[in-house]
Amino acid sequence: MPTPVSGPPKPSRFFGPVDVVCSSKEVHYSQIPKKFNIPAKSRYFHITTNNTIYGTQWHKFPETKVPVIADMSSDIFSRKLNFNKFSLIYAGAQKNLGPAGVTLVVVRKSILGKISRKIPSMMDYQVHIENGSLFNTPPVFAIYISMLTLRWLKQQGGIAAIEKVNQKKSDLLYQEIDTNPLFRGTVAREDRSRMNVCFVIQEPALENEFLEFCRNEDIAGIKGHRTTGGFRVSLYNAMPLDSVEFLVESMRFFANKKG
Amino acid sequence: MPTPVSGPPKPSRFFGPVDVVCSSKEVHYSQIPKKFNIPAKSRYFHITTNNTIYGTQWHKFPETKVPVIADMSSDIFSRKLNFNKFSLIYAGAQKNLGPAGVTLVVVRKSILGKISRKIPSMMDYQVHIENGSLFNTPPVFAIYISMLTLRWLKQQGGIAAIEKVNQKKSDLLYQEIDTNPLFRGTVAREDRSRMNVCFVIQEPALENEFLEFCRNEDIAGIKGHRTTGGFRVSLYNAMPLDSVEFLVESMRFFANKKG
Repeated sequence: MPTPVSGPPKPSRFFGPVDVVCSSKEVHYSQIPKKFNIPAKSRYFHITTNNTIYGTQWHKFPETKVPVIADMSSDIFSRKLNFNKFSLIYAGAQKNLGPAGVTLVVVRKSILGKISRKIPSMMDYQVHIENGSLFNTPPVFAIYISMLTLRWLKQQGGIAAIEKVNQKKSDLLYQEIDTNPLFRGTVAREDRSRMNVCFVIQEPALENEFLEFCRNEDIAGIKGHRTTGGFRVSLYNAMPLDSVEFLVESMRFFANKKG
Repeated sequence: MPTPVSGPPKPSRFFGPVDVVCSSKEVHYSQIPKKFNIPAKSRYFHITTNNTIYGTQWHKFPETKVPVIADMSSDIFSRKLNFNKFSLIYAGAQKNLGPAGVTLVVVRKSILGKISRKIPSMMDYQVHIENGSLFNTPPVFAIYISMLTLRWLKQQGGIAAIEKVNQKKSDLLYQEIDTNPLFRGTVAREDRSRMNVCFVIQEPALENEFLEFCRNEDIAGIKGHRTTGGFRVSLYNAMPLDSVEFLVESMRFFANKKG
């Protein structure tokens, strides 16, 4: 049995043993682990399809014999997927769906009702299903804006169309990172996220200067997560292509100035 | 030990026995029970300070030896209270505080940490306290509007001032119900709610006609809860006095027409 490397959130451990079947902690989470064994007795296999902090993303999903539970908070509706492969999908709205405060849950009914432990009603998916997602007084504003966002997505041509835009945006930015001598991507190429692009500057002394330069160009929110440093550019569905083009031009301009 | 009369929500029964120490079910919940004993071994005493469906409200709170937990969803910030009497107060925002989707919880720290049972982090108040109410990605829009609502409340003169307005509004409406021969209040006078005023029409055949008449006068949302019928007028902080005056005039006009 694999040794737990970096633990999942504590609560999962309250109700049974947790096996961490793989981790790329030893390379600072810069890649998606490729080789791992899921114990046959496992009740389910949990993954997060896109890692917003380190900028990795699952592009190929493993074949498993156990149900797959996926946190898709940061890449739901960004790309076509065989959603049938998942037994439960959950996603906080605040990346590609709507404002913070609502969570989307899609659950295969056949995996429910298998435990006898008492669950608080609010956390029991069966209760929500029986009540048509209206068991509680819901966050109506967040739901309403999510509806408008989904309508907007449909108008764009749906997931297939936005996926192409997301590919274009991320290709453009990664290409700049790979060719601009001043910058370097931090993630294994085959595992790069199309939602969160993480990179560093070759001369660390220039990090703050580049951030300051960007601020003056009205480019906001590209500072890396506080635990990683460097830069992180989020390319969620709402980010238009021309903003990425402008960032790429700015990176080139800055590098020329310094070169 | 008292016999349970009408049960509280199921989840409280998951984790221990529940005593329903009082109920006014036999009089259709038209009053607040006055005589009851709280078993000395109880961990806490739970009340809902205002009942939105039946229009009752606790005006005097019982002296107890055990911590009092109160659901104040429908009357928080509507009146001055000795909040120190409560060990835990919770309130969904959507009545007097802000849009649906956020819940206010005020908890006396000394009542926490007394159980060894594992609680999902999201439901563990200690986790929220340790994280400065930012453990989860919060519903920012609902919180923002709640802030604006609280600022508005301060501008009105605070709780003391809004309490006077709420008294004026409810006095006016109850006076009309008590003097207009066509209508009748459904709640014991001393237990009447200042937030939700419930009444019926003396001639049930006129119920729909009065609702229709009100709709034509742009008076909305006065139909009683589906489980009770009749009328229910909600006088939350945001309802201005002149709207109540207009309703009272309309009730008088309708009664004269029919009298």
